[in-house]
Amino acid sequence: MALGSRSAEDLFASARAGDRPALARLLSLIERGSDEARVISRLSFPLSGSAYTVGITGAPGAGKSTLTSAVIGQLRSAELEVAVLAIDPSSPFTGGAILGDRVRMQDHATDPGVFIRSTATRGHLGGLSLSTPEMIRLLDAVGRQWVLVETVGVGQVEVEIAGSADTTVVVVNPGWGDSVQANKAGLMEIADVFVINKSDRSGVAKSRHELESMLDLSSGSPGGWSPPIVETVATTGRGVVEMWDAVLCHRDFITTNGELVERRNQRLLEELNDIVSSRLEQRARALCGGELWNELNRGVLDRHVDPWSAADRLLDGAQ
Amino acid sequence: MALGSRSAEDLFASARAGDRPALARLLSLIERGSDEARVISRLSFPLSGSAYTVGITGAPGAGKSTLTSAVIGQLRSAELEVAVLAIDPSSPFTGGAILGDRVRMQDHATDPGVFIRSTATRGHLGGLSLSTPEMIRLLDAVGRQWVLVETVGVGQVEVEIAGSADTTVVVVNPGWGDSVQANKAGLMEIADVFVINKSDRSGVAKSRHELESMLDLSSGSPGGWSPPIVETVATTGRGVVEMWDAVLCHRDFITTNGELVERRNQRLLEELNDIVSSRLEQRARALCGGELWNELNRGVLDRHVDPWSAADRLLDGAQ
Repeated sequence: MALGSRSAEDLFASARAGDRPALARLLSLIERGSDEARVISRLSFPLSGSAYTVGITGAPGAGKSTLTSAVIGQLRSAELEVAVLAIDPSSPFTGGAILGDRVRMQDHATDPGVFIRSTATRGHLGGLSLSTPEMIRLLDAVGRQWVLVETVGVGQVEVEIAGSADTTVVVVNPGWGDSVQANKAGLMEIADVFVINKSDRSGVAKSRHELESMLDLSSGSPGGWSPPIVETVATTGRGVVEMWDAVLCHRDFITTNGELVERRNQRLLEELNDIVSSRLEQRARALCGGELWNELNRGVLDRHVDPWSAADRLLDGAQ
Repeated sequence: MALGSRSAEDLFASARAGDRPALARLLSLIERGSDEARVISRLSFPLSGSAYTVGITGAPGAGKSTLTSAVIGQLRSAELEVAVLAIDPSSPFTGGAILGDRVRMQDHATDPGVFIRSTATRGHLGGLSLSTPEMIRLLDAVGRQWVLVETVGVGQVEVEIAGSADTTVVVVNPGWGDSVQANKAGLMEIADVFVINKSDRSGVAKSRHELESMLDLSSGSPGGWSPPIVETVATTGRGVVEMWDAVLCHRDFITTNGELVERRNQRLLEELNDIVSSRLEQRARALCGGELWNELNRGVLDRHVDPWSAADRLLDGAQ
């Protein structure tokens, strides 16, 4: 049977049994915000919660894909299953297209223990901020123990998505300051691990010093996590083990002190809030169009009914 | 009986009979977004629609208040009743406080045919964009034939409010370009009449030329209104009559070709749309808090119910 005609339940069962095209198809359904997305959500949710997510973000060209590829190597050498969600809100590509600079990740494309997916979800309500957690939960529910979420760029959406991972790695380069000026504060806030990639270039000491003084300024609560700064040259593999150790160290830290559970719970409730808002917005759009809307419009224009009363009648008639 | 304890209906009847403190109190109730604001809206709406509104906007210091004061003089010499709504979203003053540079308007403060009100409504849902049309309708309903809406600044909110008047006057100064760089396009879009105030200064010809070429670029439909450019020195009264003639000329133009009715209808429907959105937002806030919300939060955190189903149950339980 063709994938396109199979039910979400059917696809989900196949994906759980290791069927990669079925998994890819489910991700597309979520991406498009189709009705089946709700079914997938209901199936995934009770089975999710065991995968660990690592967000990787930084300015374009910082070397995130090469680092991600190196991290995949680390996880695979420990025989762990990994999924990569590569997110680029500004990309015109979608529907699982492989973005240009992700080609290097294709070293792992034939490894059944690695699943790579690019997404640029747009055009449906809530967009990436609603679909990304759904995608992660699906990858989790079908048995991926690690989910790497790579976002391209340092805009608000990218930072928000990367920052909602369990551990967030912010990748910069020597002399990074100028390129991310606009959202430095946002990056400082979400970073659990800093990576100075391309550290064979000049200016590493200055960048490290700058990061350290910014971290001092924004130092959190006493006894809290202090983000380490790791130097890497992703293209040669230098520093990659140290970076991964820093990620695992952060994971241990927040697992032990209970912050992991707290963070995840907080995120879930924020998501619920976002969904409620988006459903109401959907409802408002539906309201401002129908027969009652036209009737009330006429009433308002004829001054038979004031706008507030019209709004109330519209909302009351909506349920 | 003290004003504070009188009902909105009672205050409204008094205001219609010319009671200024009652009118001021009603405006405060609208400003605060109190429950009575709805009652006032219901009372005003059927009685409104006959006042003509003139928006006056421009960068701070352009001379709007002096011009407004001169316009009041024009209207009063024709024995017309006028109300002025002076809006400053960024001002820390509220509740009818007279802003510093509006003191010159106080020339008219003792004239019973003139009613001046400053407002900086903030802190309630929808803010100025919802309360301003309500205030205008109230002033209209109590019998003010002309309502001048002066906004300070050229930000998006100010431009939007001024632009929703029947005729909009944009006040600039010689060499204005730099001071309003950020929102030139917005100003060009709303202007029905341009005033170059302080035209005794150098640079008038250049400013006029600049305005003319921008108007050429953005020229509307054939047979449409082409905004005249009037030079004034508001402090001496020079050009004020010409400016007011331009306003009256625009009024005739849009009254004759039906654009006035069209514009007002469009604005009313946009307002209805805004009210629906704001009511839904209010509802969303109310939903994310109660007993059902807490129960569903627990369900989501225990993974008994997925976020989308929780949102649906919340919304269904809301009506």
